[in-house]
Amino acid sequence: MGELRREPIVRRWVVITTENPKGPSDYLAFKFPFRVAESGEPCPFCRGNEWMTPPETFSTGTGGGGWTVRVVPNKSPFFHIEGDFDRRAEGMYDLMGSIGAHEIVVEAPDHPPSFATMDPPQIRQVLLAYRQRFIDLERDPRIHQMLILKNYPGIFNRHPHSHLLAMPVVPRGIDEEILGTLDYYQRKERCIFCDIVREELSARKRVVMETSSFLVFCPFASRFPFETWIIPKTHSPDFQAITEEMMGDLSVILQSLFARFRTLLSDPPYSFVVHTSPIQGQFHRDEYHWHVEARLRIGLSEGFEWGTGFFVNPTPPENAAELLRDSG
Amino acid sequence: MGELRREPIVRRWVVITTENPKGPSDYLAFKFPFRVAESGEPCPFCRGNEWMTPPETFSTGTGGGGWTVRVVPNKSPFFHIEGDFDRRAEGMYDLMGSIGAHEIVVEAPDHPPSFATMDPPQIRQVLLAYRQRFIDLERDPRIHQMLILKNYPGIFNRHPHSHLLAMPVVPRGIDEEILGTLDYYQRKERCIFCDIVREELSARKRVVMETSSFLVFCPFASRFPFETWIIPKTHSPDFQAITEEMMGDLSVILQSLFARFRTLLSDPPYSFVVHTSPIQGQFHRDEYHWHVEARLRIGLSEGFEWGTGFFVNPTPPENAAELLRDSG
Repeated sequence: MGELRREPIVRRWVVITTENPKGPSDYLAFKFPFRVAESGEPCPFCRGNEWMTPPETFSTGTGGGGWTVRVVPNKSPFFHIEGDFDRRAEGMYDLMGSIGAHEIVVEAPDHPPSFATMDPPQIRQVLLAYRQRFIDLERDPRIHQMLILKNYPGIFNRHPHSHLLAMPVVPRGIDEEILGTLDYYQRKERCIFCDIVREELSARKRVVMETSSFLVFCPFASRFPFETWIIPKTHSPDFQAITEEMMGDLSVILQSLFARFRTLLSDPPYSFVVHTSPIQGQFHRDEYHWHVEARLRIGLSEGFEWGTGFFVNPTPPENAAELLRDSG
Repeated sequence: MGELRREPIVRRWVVITTENPKGPSDYLAFKFPFRVAESGEPCPFCRGNEWMTPPETFSTGTGGGGWTVRVVPNKSPFFHIEGDFDRRAEGMYDLMGSIGAHEIVVEAPDHPPSFATMDPPQIRQVLLAYRQRFIDLERDPRIHQMLILKNYPGIFNRHPHSHLLAMPVVPRGIDEEILGTLDYYQRKERCIFCDIVREELSARKRVVMETSSFLVFCPFASRFPFETWIIPKTHSPDFQAITEEMMGDLSVILQSLFARFRTLLSDPPYSFVVHTSPIQGQFHRDEYHWHVEARLRIGLSEGFEWGTGFFVNPTPPENAAELLRDSG
């Protein structure tokens, strides 16, 4: 079991994993990344090695040729499906059990390198898995926020996969967005994300590409070089309400965007996250708007963001968008 | 000139450097870090190469043997001392010139590797330089926040140095702390940092070391493995009010702490930041309390913080403090 501890000044929740705490030797080992791939051990996410993971919670394509996408509980989860919140104080501090769910979406049966080189129909299966797990998990009344995070390449395993997190609290990153959207809505009676879509379609300086359902653009105040957002053109608070047509569009966009990154920047490491409205209580139906935020992990300002709370970006989004447009 | 652009949802300021924007080739080059050291070019921060930097703003030890610590304006500053705020809108967005100051504190005339192996008297000269520059820069009415950030090793140059930033806005990281301290003070009429000092001295589970002026501890909700804070034991909002005696204490602590990191974790990369009260208007005299936050750059949860707004820390601060105590 892990603990959710609340930072008392800023009141941010931090997950502290208390079982098998990591000591210095674990960090020394980590100086050589991608241990699984290098070790020659069998990959637990490859087809044929299903026995190495906990039982799956969802899979696609199991008709005849075997699964195409497979979702399994994480063996070292940040949030645990079993256990008790046990909310309590320790001195002046607050903590509780890290209840929730942490699953791994295995995006393919083998090791194609990236969304950049996957077929859009395979990416569509991944999106289907995200949607189905969101729909299942949102029935759990303990869950307040769901989130998808993908790192390429993976930190511990190069097999293409993403993290699905179902959390008992709305984490700081989403909460800040929520507060901002509520404030904007109070002043304008409009969704700020919808206004951004209109602004970007009118200015045309930061647009990367466009489909009937989505706008892909580099945000005005991009924190990272080549930061790119993918946003539904019409108001939609919840990722899990994504339609079949939108999944088709989004799979083409994801393949194309990461292929452009690959062309421009020689197979760079990237991450993306799906931000969606908190669940429970049907809050924020008019104000929040789901979207995908993608970034490259190539920043020069490592440490600045942590130390100062501000980001420094040496590539203006207007330049980034132009380069990405022209590399399609 | 750079721009300060305001992210419209979360309302975080981002520095976008618009002159000489960095394109893909700049990032490809950066895949091989420490370019200056590898290139064989002369180091602009070494004694004898003073001609390579802009004129210094402060130095110590210039009596006979040459300078011991030297402060110079950064050649590629994030904040510019000259120019105009030019606050304006662009469509729905807000921006202004990135006015302020960005100086480099060269911590020694040659390349000793780290605070871990420097003599405390030399570190004391560095603290003196911080204090003097803070006192000079706070007279500029355009400056609202000052901050020190040190990365070891440096990103572009291995010569030991720290960044001194004087900013026209209070950045998000400090602003979040300020809001938290104000809220706490409203409820309790006590400084939350002072309460944390009392709590940690009473619990004794997370203390690393202690002098007459400072407490060194791993915070209850540490975001990073081995995160360590250094905090004055008595209430003090401003770093620049540091006394001679406190500077002596702090120089011994900094040397000892980073030597412990070195012993435990085989010369790991680390960073620290000095957080101090915003200036102008004499706000927050009773609520804010300056301190040093130090971290190792060895996290396993790269990407999680950005993607989710929460941190995952696999080393409980109680374990970290014990290991650090025992390695002194």
